[in-house]
Amino acid sequence: MTERRHDREFVRTFFTSPTAVEGEDDSAKMLRRAADLRGLEAPDVWVPDNEDATAPSMREEGAENVAEVVADSGADFPGEIHPRVVWHRDDPAARYRGFQQMLTVADPDRGAVDHIDGFVIPEVGDIDDWKKADEALTLVETEHGLDRGSLAMSVIVESGEAELAMRHLREEVGKPTNSLERLFLLVDGEVDYTKDMRATTPTGELPPWPELRHNTSRGASAAGLIAVDGPYDDIRDVEGYRERMEANRAKGMTGIWSLTPGQVVEANTAPLPPETGRWLLSAGDRRVELDDRDGAWAYDGDRLSLDETGDDYRLRVGGDERRLDAEQLREELLGLVEYVPSMSDVVDSMEEFEAARESGTGAIAIERAATLRLDGVDVEISSDRMWDEATYQAAMTPIRLFQDVYDHRPDQREELEERYGEDVVERATTVG
Amino acid sequence: MTERRHDREFVRTFFTSPTAVEGEDDSAKMLRRAADLRGLEAPDVWVPDNEDATAPSMREEGAENVAEVVADSGADFPGEIHPRVVWHRDDPAARYRGFQQMLTVADPDRGAVDHIDGFVIPEVGDIDDWKKADEALTLVETEHGLDRGSLAMSVIVESGEAELAMRHLREEVGKPTNSLERLFLLVDGEVDYTKDMRATTPTGELPPWPELRHNTSRGASAAGLIAVDGPYDDIRDVEGYRERMEANRAKGMTGIWSLTPGQVVEANTAPLPPETGRWLLSAGDRRVELDDRDGAWAYDGDRLSLDETGDDYRLRVGGDERRLDAEQLREELLGLVEYVPSMSDVVDSMEEFEAARESGTGAIAIERAATLRLDGVDVEISSDRMWDEATYQAAMTPIRLFQDVYDHRPDQREELEERYGEDVVERATTVG
Amino acid sequence: MTERRHDREFVRTFFTSPTAVEGEDDSAKMLRRAADLRGLEAPDVWVPDNEDATAPSMREEGAENVAEVVADSGADFPGEIHPRVVWHRDDPAARYRGFQQMLTVADPDRGAVDHIDGFVIPEVGDIDDWKKADEALTLVETEHGLDRGSLAMSVIVESGEAELAMRHLREEVGKPTNSLERLFLLVDGEVDYTKDMRATTPTGELPPWPELRHNTSRGASAAGLIAVDGPYDDIRDVEGYRERMEANRAKGMTGIWSLTPGQVVEANTAPLPPETGRWLLSAGDRRVELDDRDGAWAYDGDRLSLDETGDDYRLRVGGDERRLDAEQLREELLGLVEYVPSMSDVVDSMEEFEAARESGTGAIAIERAATLRLDGVDVEISSDRMWDEATYQAAMTPIRLFQDVYDHRPDQREELEERYGEDVVERATTVG
Repeated sequence: MTERRHDREFVRTFFTSPTAVEGEDDSAKMLRRAADLRGLEAPDVWVPDNEDATAPSMREEGAENVAEVVADSGADFPGEIHPRVVWHRDDPAARYRGFQQMLTVADPDRGAVDHIDGFVIPEVGDIDDWKKADEALTLVETEHGLDRGSLAMSVIVESGEAELAMRHLREEVGKPTNSLERLFLLVDGEVDYTKDMRATTPTGELPPWPELRHNTSRGASAAGLIAVDGPYDDIRDVEGYRERMEANRAKGMTGIWSLTPGQVVEANTAPLPPETGRWLLSAGDRRVELDDRDGAWAYDGDRLSLDETGDDYRLRVGGDERRLDAEQLREELLGLVEYVPSMSDVVDSMEEFEAARESGTGAIAIERAATLRLDGVDVEISSDRMWDEATYQAAMTPIRLFQDVYDHRPDQREELEERYGEDVVERATTVG
Repeated sequence: MTERRHDREFVRTFFTSPTAVEGEDDSAKMLRRAADLRGLEAPDVWVPDNEDATAPSMREEGAENVAEVVADSGADFPGEIHPRVVWHRDDPAARYRGFQQMLTVADPDRGAVDHIDGFVIPEVGDIDDWKKADEALTLVETEHGLDRGSLAMSVIVESGEAELAMRHLREEVGKPTNSLERLFLLVDGEVDYTKDMRATTPTGELPPWPELRHNTSRGASAAGLIAVDGPYDDIRDVEGYRERMEANRAKGMTGIWSLTPGQVVEANTAPLPPETGRWLLSAGDRRVELDDRDGAWAYDGDRLSLDETGDDYRLRVGGDERRLDAEQLREELLGLVEYVPSMSDVVDSMEEFEAARESGTGAIAIERAATLRLDGVDVEISSDRMWDEATYQAAMTPIRLFQDVYDHRPDQREELEERYGEDVVERATTVG
Repeated sequence: MTERRHDREFVRTFFTSPTAVEGEDDSAKMLRRAADLRGLEAPDVWVPDNEDATAPSMREEGAENVAEVVADSGADFPGEIHPRVVWHRDDPAARYRGFQQMLTVADPDRGAVDHIDGFVIPEVGDIDDWKKADEALTLVETEHGLDRGSLAMSVIVESGEAELAMRHLREEVGKPTNSLERLFLLVDGEVDYTKDMRATTPTGELPPWPELRHNTSRGASAAGLIAVDGPYDDIRDVEGYRERMEANRAKGMTGIWSLTPGQVVEANTAPLPPETGRWLLSAGDRRVELDDRDGAWAYDGDRLSLDETGDDYRLRVGGDERRLDAEQLREELLGLVEYVPSMSDVVDSMEEFEAARESGTGAIAIERAATLRLDGVDVEISSDRMWDEATYQAAMTPIRLFQDVYDHRPDQREELEERYGEDVVERATTVG
């Protein structure tokens, strides 16, 4: 695998807070509130945001607030802290302001720098612009007597230029004239990307940008970095947020921006396998979840109907109706259902495979059996899935994520144990 | 923003005409007819097509026809004029013919060159092939005493090589040994691209090539160029043409090829915000438009049903039925509807935000209220949308397009004023 | 077109066999069985798989088995033979083992090398890693007195690095210090790619990776190579395998991995035009096939209904109902149906176009007429499609594939003649 140079191998959550709010008694109020988050409400990466979330006139004060609040509370904050400063590929004045803000936040006299893990640089362009940001960080480190490369650098990919730049990372990281080894997160910024690409939609909602997310995820994979998706604006739409995260994970993009502690909780838990397994049924062009009713998996909707007629069965899916005997019905249903394994199921299968491998067997069959109850008719099904080294390795991804969380987020252990049970947590941390 | 070096910032329409048709009294008939187009029927870019649209045996005559017709009518034509000549990355003879055709069209003695804005080069390959075309244009300019770079160059992206070449534009444009600053449009050519990629579909229709369109749009964005989609063959399918353009705009591709004056009208108007706003309802996996009936937005279809039962409501969407009180119903419906703002709405919101920003406020709530009439039951809803600098900037794209059109296409002003009203046009040209 | 340097222009099937199975009397049993495949069950490329399909402890024996079985049966095997050896971008020991395995298989004393067309290298990374594999092949060739470049090299694209590397092929192939002209197939490996990208799905099924497939197809197109998709695990799901292949062909990816002789038959026939043409109907968001009933194309499903009421017709598609006269109905239906041409149809159209072109006509109309029988109501429709040089060239792709198969796979000729009839086969091999 491409070398990973940072503590965290996975980042689930990227949570931004305004650094200075005008008209409040304490302009750092939002920062202080965020610094107090713990457990599943606390993000993996907290981003005091001295750019878009803070009014331009408040950013000088914002940088000082960050230093002050992180000096006070940084030692106890359970996630990493990566403030965002201003930056723009087309604006040297913005770059100089960003440099000054980093100098302020990282000033050892202010006492915050020990708890600052890095900085987030927005609006980067070509790879040469990334190098300018890297150089600014090198100067900050030198000026403040920090080790070179000790401050991580994450970037917001929000222009076509930056999207194109990601393909150069493997050639550029490690060159003697830069310290790009400090790179940590590649974060998509779809709002400004949409503006930069001059894209529009009738309602003003953001385009889905699947190719950008693929390219960011691939760029991260090839350079040992972590890909993070941009903000999901509709805070009330929890279902939509979950669907976006599921689509992102299918692209290898494990993290996402969170705008509220509620979104943080969702995004901290979504990439972990569920507590209990469940069966899905592909009916027509949709996948529906079956209900667990007294141990049988039931479906009563109108996308599928099943009748028992003597020895035969009549199965209708969508417009298609067929008469089947018991064995044919089982076969047919097997093709329509899929199982979503729980954390415990995944750990079981991995342990089973590890034991088999140790005794010299390269592949085993994992069986899943269930009673389906469709329109009140019960059918017993049972499917085998072959597990070989490749299946095992692929199943490792969520488990390694879980282990990464368990190691680096002791504040979440209690909630994880409540969720999965102590036994499953114990086995999940040792498997693999 | 990446520098834009041409008069037009947006191009909506790319309209091709055969340069010489055999067996007609006047082989230039189609050219003369196109040269007379005005208003919404006239394209932003007119392309006398001395390549695929014209028989090989007629192309010499075609180049002369272009010179003659543009000399006669070019001064009055309201769009830009960019003839297409022959070219092929794998065929030096084709390249030499293309060079000769450009020499003919741009010959000052023929009187057309003052109205020729540039040339369109098809079938380009690697970036070094683009440089050959650039060099041919430089020789034409020198030979005819024109300023270097005065002839724009647009290319048809219709090979994997050309798709890959676009990533080099930022590094190559501006090198002292080329004049690639003359680049203007990146136009996808899906017919030949499909052939070059050896792709097939059962019915022979073109594949959708979403990745190509993304890459062209990104290449244009990163190099300050304009992305244009290829021809939409099914001329009668206006709805399909509109859907393709909406999908393109969500990728940042603002222009499209037009094969008929009817397609030109569609493509000239589609990227502009509508005259009147409207509400959409997400019902199941589809979005349907609500009907404006005496001020209420009505839906009577069967994807959603709503009953009033005393104090409660019964709402069914797809297979899912729920009992809700008035407040819950409002909340639920708010999640299902979306508003498509009109030009006037967009201008209103931008003006409101500009005023707020001037008085020191960084974000405002834009309210939209409506009466929904679902299955005859009226429900009042009202939603707020936050507008900040980013929302404002993103909303600018269609307005800047409108302003670009207004400035460069005085022949369309009357039709635009009829469409939107003078007041809205006046405000849309000054906002931002 | 980009130069193609190998015998085959198209590869439909890439079929892997374990090289040595433990616990069998004859560990080469699977190899011997595969070597006996003929006709449509025999793949275009057979891959004795000394990597993932074979247990690590059996791979030394596996390399010897490959040499032995290919020496015995290679002369008679109708497809090409490209064994896969071990390799890993991050593991020099694996690379050295792969080198040794190639030395074994290609050793002239073992008698197999005359029937070995090349090797498949898995787990490649950056282009410099591809060059290491190329160098290993050069050493094997030199050591064994083979012509430089006589062994082809195919790679499995199963990492972000390898995906990124494909964009360099046009610049790197042909450099004097490598022999990358030996490159033949670019094969996606979605299982390991998913692991490498750290992607997950709830059920553990593979993500669809459309962008990877596009990039592989484009990389192949730009470098004169052939793109092949990875394994389709669900062997029983023939319909799903066909849908995947149809989607691949729309991306220009003509080949696919096959895990069983049954999949080989499917994948050998899927890219060829069907024996008989058929009509499709777009009803709502689905496309359904019409049934050929005594010469009329019938649909009785509930996505569309049609009533005759005196002189008028009532047509309902989805929720949308309209009253139309006979002419309007014909127009409307013409917009809803599409024709999938048979091999014979394609050849007819091409011959017709060739004749017209010879007599100086650049475009002809190809007419298709049919009787539609919708809800028992018969409607005669007739549509014209314009065929010009571009349509002709695009239609060539499946015909060239057919010709490539006919030339290089004499063992399949009989089955092809049974399928299409001798006359169609005769004409299909001479057209173009």
